[in-house]
Amino acid sequence: MSTATSTQWHLVRRPVGEPTPDDVARVEATLDELGPDEVRVANAFLSVDPYMRGRMDDKPSYVPPFRLDEAMTGAAVGHVVESTSDALPVGTMVTHQYGWRDVAQGPAARFTAVEELDGVSLSAYLGVLGLTGLTAYTGLVRIAEMKEGDAVFVSGAAGAVGSMVGQIARLRGASRVIGSAGSAEKIALLTDRYGFDAAFDYHDGDIRGQLKAAAPDGIDVYFDNVGGEHLSAALHRLKRFGRIAVCGAISAYNSTGEPEGITGMTNVVRNSLRIEGFTMGDHWDLGADFQAEMRPWLENGDVVFDETILDGVDNAFDAFTRMMRGENVGKMVVRVTEPS
Amino acid sequence: MSTATSTQWHLVRRPVGEPTPDDVARVEATLDELGPDEVRVANAFLSVDPYMRGRMDDKPSYVPPFRLDEAMTGAAVGHVVESTSDALPVGTMVTHQYGWRDVAQGPAARFTAVEELDGVSLSAYLGVLGLTGLTAYTGLVRIAEMKEGDAVFVSGAAGAVGSMVGQIARLRGASRVIGSAGSAEKIALLTDRYGFDAAFDYHDGDIRGQLKAAAPDGIDVYFDNVGGEHLSAALHRLKRFGRIAVCGAISAYNSTGEPEGITGMTNVVRNSLRIEGFTMGDHWDLGADFQAEMRPWLENGDVVFDETILDGVDNAFDAFTRMMRGENVGKMVVRVTEPS
Repeated sequence: MSTATSTQWHLVRRPVGEPTPDDVARVEATLDELGPDEVRVANAFLSVDPYMRGRMDDKPSYVPPFRLDEAMTGAAVGHVVESTSDALPVGTMVTHQYGWRDVAQGPAARFTAVEELDGVSLSAYLGVLGLTGLTAYTGLVRIAEMKEGDAVFVSGAAGAVGSMVGQIARLRGASRVIGSAGSAEKIALLTDRYGFDAAFDYHDGDIRGQLKAAAPDGIDVYFDNVGGEHLSAALHRLKRFGRIAVCGAISAYNSTGEPEGITGMTNVVRNSLRIEGFTMGDHWDLGADFQAEMRPWLENGDVVFDETILDGVDNAFDAFTRMMRGENVGKMVVRVTEPS
Repeated sequence: MSTATSTQWHLVRRPVGEPTPDDVARVEATLDELGPDEVRVANAFLSVDPYMRGRMDDKPSYVPPFRLDEAMTGAAVGHVVESTSDALPVGTMVTHQYGWRDVAQGPAARFTAVEELDGVSLSAYLGVLGLTGLTAYTGLVRIAEMKEGDAVFVSGAAGAVGSMVGQIARLRGASRVIGSAGSAEKIALLTDRYGFDAAFDYHDGDIRGQLKAAAPDGIDVYFDNVGGEHLSAALHRLKRFGRIAVCGAISAYNSTGEPEGITGMTNVVRNSLRIEGFTMGDHWDLGADFQAEMRPWLENGDVVFDETILDGVDNAFDAFTRMMRGENVGKMVVRVTEPS
């Protein structure tokens, strides 16, 4: 492995609007020999997530921008193939942030050993047991302070985070769980597989009217993955003391102009509503509580999860853009072909 | 006093847009003789407040709508002129909610005895020591959780609540206090009399640009009395973990159509912002803390307050509409001519 290489994705230009293949480059990098207390990891799965779009812009945000002409980063899981670390010997399964590449390398302290669970794909660590699941849990439990008996609405409900929000809400005693998604197939998935009580297709338009029909008695909590018209609709539907956890605004991420204005904000006073944005960097402390609650649900089959898997590190950028267009069901991951 | 009368304002029609004199009627009512444990009060001052506009509409809100063809209600202060209550003998100063009339009458339990403070007008109980001051305190301290060193922006800053917000923020150690108001005179008042560090006139337009110039390093707290363009501007100017206490949306109260959309909502995620609406009905428990902090400030002259006083119960509706148009400086009150 002394002349090992890594196929990596670099950002070469700041995207304007939707990222295009010209904004990135696939680069073959030669890896240095390991220094002391380092590991080399053959990635099994790479994560692509909406927040990465923000990192492609050169503006202040909750995570620093990607630098141009360097490998992009993100969550990944794999096994150690070479090691100078006693803590992480060859063969250890690890999660880490050196994604967007097939082979990762760095200080052992940057990698976290994980257990492989029986019958659960390693990719779960990028989703239901990773950032995705913890994001759903944080927004619902800490930010929106969901209580038993609450009616909960989540947008982008067939997505990785959304499908977890709906299931956690149900398992924590929601009186009604309502989801929106972007196709008839996804809508069916919400009610048939994830246990939502009601679901609607936002491509059918009149989001406000559809939400009213799905939640005739109003909602207590809105988990917002989308922003825009969904947020306006929720503001009109929230009951007194309703809470909105704002996790994302995917409708605006690729927007080049000023996003459409939000209506219904006068309800914030009228109904004593709370709207709160959050990003996971401030909530890692919830991880232990989350794992303690989520593992039994997974073991008991109370929580199901889906993945859309694209094969090959060469398809990582394609996976990202497809995820941004909403073509995934559940967590979008890239399965890395075993390096030769 | 057995054939006592009361001049009262009734709502006779639900206003569409800005209330007009045709929506109300001044009625001479004959008062019944007092029953057991009742008082009759000669009101000295009546309060007119923005929330009353909401009560004129027949739609669900945090306070029930005014009923048609009945006397409207609101805060008032006066002295007992007839009494069958041992607790409230003739001459007692009381605050109560039987406003919009010169003579009030009802169960003693609905009236609260207050002390007359040396050199402070009784009308202070409708303002700085009443709902107005407590509203400012609640929004700033409990909802926005203002901390020492925060930069604080308040809209409608020359109004009754706004001028208190700015002064409480200063006295609680704000690093910078910025206010907006609707005339050059009011702007001068903010910096010269109320101790704001910077102020701008929203009638000059470009609220976002003016706020940026006034708060070049950003803001931590926004106390929103106005909504609309002010709210959008604040969303663009808030620093990470910034908080907005939404107290009012006076820009939308008289609107008959859908209010203008709010821009900048994508900053809620980007900067982990919190927006929270509140109404005083849920926060009376803060009253004791508030009084304990405000009385010394008043006694020491650390807090100043202004009133716009209109004389005569006959002018109560005029006072209300002038207040809604922003023609008042400080708290708008009606001074009732002593009944004969």
